[in-house]
Amino acid sequence: MTYCLGILLPEGLVLASDSRSSAGFDSIAVVCKLATIAIPGDRLVVIQSAGNLATTQAVVRELKQALGSGNPKWDVALAPTMSAVAGIVGAKMRDVVLMNEKFVKPYGDPTASFLVGGQITGEPPRLLKVYSAGNFVEASPRTCFLQIGEAKYGKPILDRALEPSSTLAEAEKLALLSFDATIRSNLSVGAPIDILRYRTDSLTADPVITLEDTDPYWLELRLRYAEGLNALVTSLPEPNYHGA
Amino acid sequence: MTYCLGILLPEGLVLASDSRSSAGFDSIAVVCKLATIAIPGDRLVVIQSAGNLATTQAVVRELKQALGSGNPKWDVALAPTMSAVAGIVGAKMRDVVLMNEKFVKPYGDPTASFLVGGQITGEPPRLLKVYSAGNFVEASPRTCFLQIGEAKYGKPILDRALEPSSTLAEAEKLALLSFDATIRSNLSVGAPIDILRYRTDSLTADPVITLEDTDPYWLELRLRYAEGLNALVTSLPEPNYHGA
Repeated sequence: MTYCLGILLPEGLVLASDSRSSAGFDSIAVVCKLATIAIPGDRLVVIQSAGNLATTQAVVRELKQALGSGNPKWDVALAPTMSAVAGIVGAKMRDVVLMNEKFVKPYGDPTASFLVGGQITGEPPRLLKVYSAGNFVEASPRTCFLQIGEAKYGKPILDRALEPSSTLAEAEKLALLSFDATIRSNLSVGAPIDILRYRTDSLTADPVITLEDTDPYWLELRLRYAEGLNALVTSLPEPNYHGA
Repeated sequence: MTYCLGILLPEGLVLASDSRSSAGFDSIAVVCKLATIAIPGDRLVVIQSAGNLATTQAVVRELKQALGSGNPKWDVALAPTMSAVAGIVGAKMRDVVLMNEKFVKPYGDPTASFLVGGQITGEPPRLLKVYSAGNFVEASPRTCFLQIGEAKYGKPILDRALEPSSTLAEAEKLALLSFDATIRSNLSVGAPIDILRYRTDSLTADPVITLEDTDPYWLELRLRYAEGLNALVTSLPEPNYHGA
């Protein structure tokens, strides 16, 4: 299983992915589900992946190979907009799935889904979600986060606390709490977490941060959140409607 | 969609169900998904339902009709144990589904799932979950809550704060927070919430409490939790690993 989260705010983007790959409980590996295509000063494109690992790796690999090819159908460096990039990712996945599905289906689902985030000169930062059908939707101030993979456990904290006016630092803290909730409730989502923070109009990638389970900041965040939440619940009044 | 939750503790049981039935966004009704079969002094059996409403209503209706029939195959009053009751619920669902599935399948899934909780003289209180296949699993101190329906959004708060040693009042407060999280994240789960609290060895049912959205206690609980959670998140340190 996988959990990837993208948050779009006026200040920029927070993109986070877990890194556990499992084809069963005894076949667990650590993989990278967050790929970047950066042309500093012109564009930063980040592709986060969930679903069939052979499919997602093929899509990312082939798009990286097509960089600079000059072929507008596949060259992300030539895409005029982020939605064009999402279209390329969806089209590439359709190709990969079509070529493989009759062999793969006996073993499982060959499809995948993606978050495509970043900025291209002339546009604001954008964040899109490519469905396993290859079509896509876009985040907006009204829907400022998108998720793929094991999305439900980590959604309530975002629904409660993330605002379109949140800062990047606030959003990143909430992203980590969202991952904490997911990891607690689903063993097949696991650390390390890859996090990329992008500042609007910087048109360059900050380094991807890889947070291990043992990272002191993340340990402290999880501990203080757990303690604070339990103290909060304890402080709330008990049901009074049963009568004496 | 539906969300039903059962919690098994030494003090007894907390059983809660939402009451929204929807076959699409324009066909929404309020139904009861929590049925009781009570023989005071001998047994209390509570059946919570999720899934196809025609199926769940047929199962509950036919088991209520069979009460006192003296037929050990279907008479819940004769079941020697709660696991035998779960077996009866599963067998009745299989019968109902078998009879209907070829007509229902073109329109949707004919199956259902159930939580079966309560106590029969000679046993401690028990809580079981009947899958849509008709087989079942049981709660224990290690797994002290079971869910059916839209289970994921409301699971993190229980994973964090519910303990096998929690009191019934604490568990009921957490159950309501679990419903709050679910209702916020899934429009098709909705109030009122039916709640039944059962005290170990009472062998009698307290009245089912029906909590409307406007109930002053629940309003206060949700408001104070939301405020407290936002204050907690604000108080936590921001990521410090990006450098200056």
